[in-house]
Parts: sequence; structure tokens; C-alpha cells
Amino acid sequence: MVLACLAFVTSSAHKHREAMEILALPLERVALDLPEPQGLDVVAVAREKARSAYRALGRPVLVEDTSLEIAALGGFPGPLVRWLLEAAGPPAIARMLDGFDDRSARALCAAVARDGDREWLGVGRVEGSIAREPRGRGGFGWDVVFAPEWGGGSTYAELAPAVKNARSHRRLALEALKRQLTANS
Amino acid sequence: MVLACLAFVTSSAHKHREAMEILALPLERVALDLPEPQGLDVVAVAREKARSAYRALGRPVLVEDTSLEIAALGGFPGPLVRWLLEAAGPPAIARMLDGFDDRSARALCAAVARDGDREWLGVGRVEGSIAREPRGRGGFGWDVVFAPEWGGGSTYAELAPAVKNARSHRRLALEALKRQLTANS
Repeated sequence: MVLACLAFVTSSAHKHREAMEILALPLERVALDLPEPQGLDVVAVAREKARSAYRALGRPVLVEDTSLEIAALGGFPGPLVRWLLEAAGPPAIARMLDGFDDRSARALCAAVARDGDREWLGVGRVEGSIAREPRGRGGFGWDVVFAPEWGGGSTYAELAPAVKNARSHRRLALEALKRQLTANS
Repeated sequence: MVLACLAFVTSSAHKHREAMEILALPLERVALDLPEPQGLDVVAVAREKARSAYRALGRPVLVEDTSLEIAALGGFPGPLVRWLLEAAGPPAIARMLDGFDDRSARALCAAVARDGDREWLGVGRVEGSIAREPRGRGGFGWDVVFAPEWGGGSTYAELAPAVKNARSHRRLALEALKRQLTANS
């Protein structure tokens, strides 16, 4: 299976653009609002989305799901971070941790390709922390409050896109997926 | 439709016991792990659960879903509170709000009965606030951190079960549902 032949099923134009930058490939985007099961396991959510996407389109698909695991909250909100972001916004995410000493967090991305019963999975993990307040103008979503440990204190949104994309959770997941696709095709 | 003829589909023995206390009725419990769609709208989640439950059992069903809307977080976590509770526990829910002046919150319950294409809905809402730390030994789930505004400062878990159940979000939802069932049967 070749990555460029997959339909990237996502309602996020940001994720689509970033995936193309990371892979240096054009990727067809299909905006389909897939039902997402509740849960804290990003791999399980991404696999379920891939099954739904394949059922809906009947052709090889690529989906991804991201997760923000906050240590002080036992890994919450995980894949549910999109709802936290939508409801509360980045300033509240930062402030939610003001009562805790531990601000560490992990950004995860699970990228899944599916063609019929065949499935390929790539997972990317980046350790980091939640900033005391939103900082930076780049990126999207919760990039303004997540500072990767390799970023010298900057949030994803303060880093140049090329710097973020060189080592981000999404980059690591897509590269791992690419290796799987190449190895098993 | 008569409430006592419905199968209450829930994996929670606590919710089952409380519903029987509130309704003063025996209710058959069916423990079925229903897929729950992600989202912040408790009515939408409960309606979807009722459809799944009816599909699975093929007989009249009762389901409920609860939600904790925290004002400082724009209503988050809503129906996703079960995951916050599971991952972080009540002490962290209390501490999450230490950085905010506003600790107000709303407890919601949506109870849905379904028989084929017929659906009945009852919604209960209780205004209150999140305690500074868990208090009390009664109730279950997040009862130790939610203080209803009519509770004189006590959390649900500090109130006697009969006092809680007389005015709780679940009571109000089940009573509203009961009225619907009686009116439209």
C-alpha cells in the first residue's frame, strides 16, 4: 500500500495540511464526520474511525486521532481533548493545572490505514508539559499550551512549523505508519 | 408504556439501585456495555444509547446518561465526566478548579425510554458547585465533589440518600420521564 493512494478522512483542514507537509506528498482529503466512540485509548479510537471510514468509502483510507494525556489527571482528557478545547479553550486548559505541582503531559497521535481487512498502525508520542498560559501564534488546537520537552521551553505554537513538524507526535505517527506500509505491502 | 415494564440498560449497579429507590418500583436491570458516542450533549448521548439498547434487546428499554457541566470549563466535561472520574478521581476534579474563581457546576440527567420508533425523554437539572475537596461517604461517582445549591453546602455524598434522591438530577429526570410515559401511553 502506498500512502499517496489513501484518502485521508478528516474534518480538519489543519491536520490535512500538516500531514502533507510532513509526508511531502499530496494527499486527497475527504471531509467525513465519523462517529467517535468515547474512551481514553487513542489507538482504539483511531482503529474504530478507520473501520467506519472504510465502511463509508469502500476504498483505502487513512485516519488519525490525537490525544493529550495530562499526568496530574491520570491521562485525561486523552482523545477527548477536542471537546475540552471546544468547550473551554486553551486558557482554561492552562489554568486547570494551576492547583497541581505536576504540569507534565504527553501528546499522542495514532495514524491508521485500512484497506478491507488489512490495517496498518503508526503511533507517535512526545513528552512535554502544559504551559502556564497560551503562547505563540503557529499551529492549531492546543498547540498554544503544549510545550514539547525538546522545544527549549517553547510551545508547539511558538516553534516554526518546520521545527514542530520535524519532531511532532503527528510526524512520528505518520513516519511509523509509512514504515509499516512499506514493510507489509 | 409503564415504567415497570422497561428493561433498565445500565452497567452501573449504583444507578440501578438509585432509580428503584426514586421510583419505588422494581426495575429489571440489563448490564449491556453500549457504545457511547463522544459529545457534550447529554440528551443526544442518551438518545443514541436508547437506540442502541433497543436494537440490541428488541424490547422496551430505559437508559440514562448523566453529565457534569463545569461553568469555568465552558460546560466540560459534560457526559464525558465518567472518563474524568475514572482517570483522575474526585480529588483531582476538585483541584482542577483551584485556579478559577467560579466553581459553579450543573448536574444533568437525561432518561430515555424507547419502544420501536417511540421515544420518551425526561431531563433533570440541578445547579450547584464543585467542592474544594471530596467530602462525604454516601452516593457514588462524583457525588463527593458536587454540592447542590439546595444542599446547604453539603455534597451529594454528605446528604442522606433519601434527601439526595428527593431532589437529585436523576430524580427530576425520572419523574419527568414518568410524566411523559403516562401522558403518551
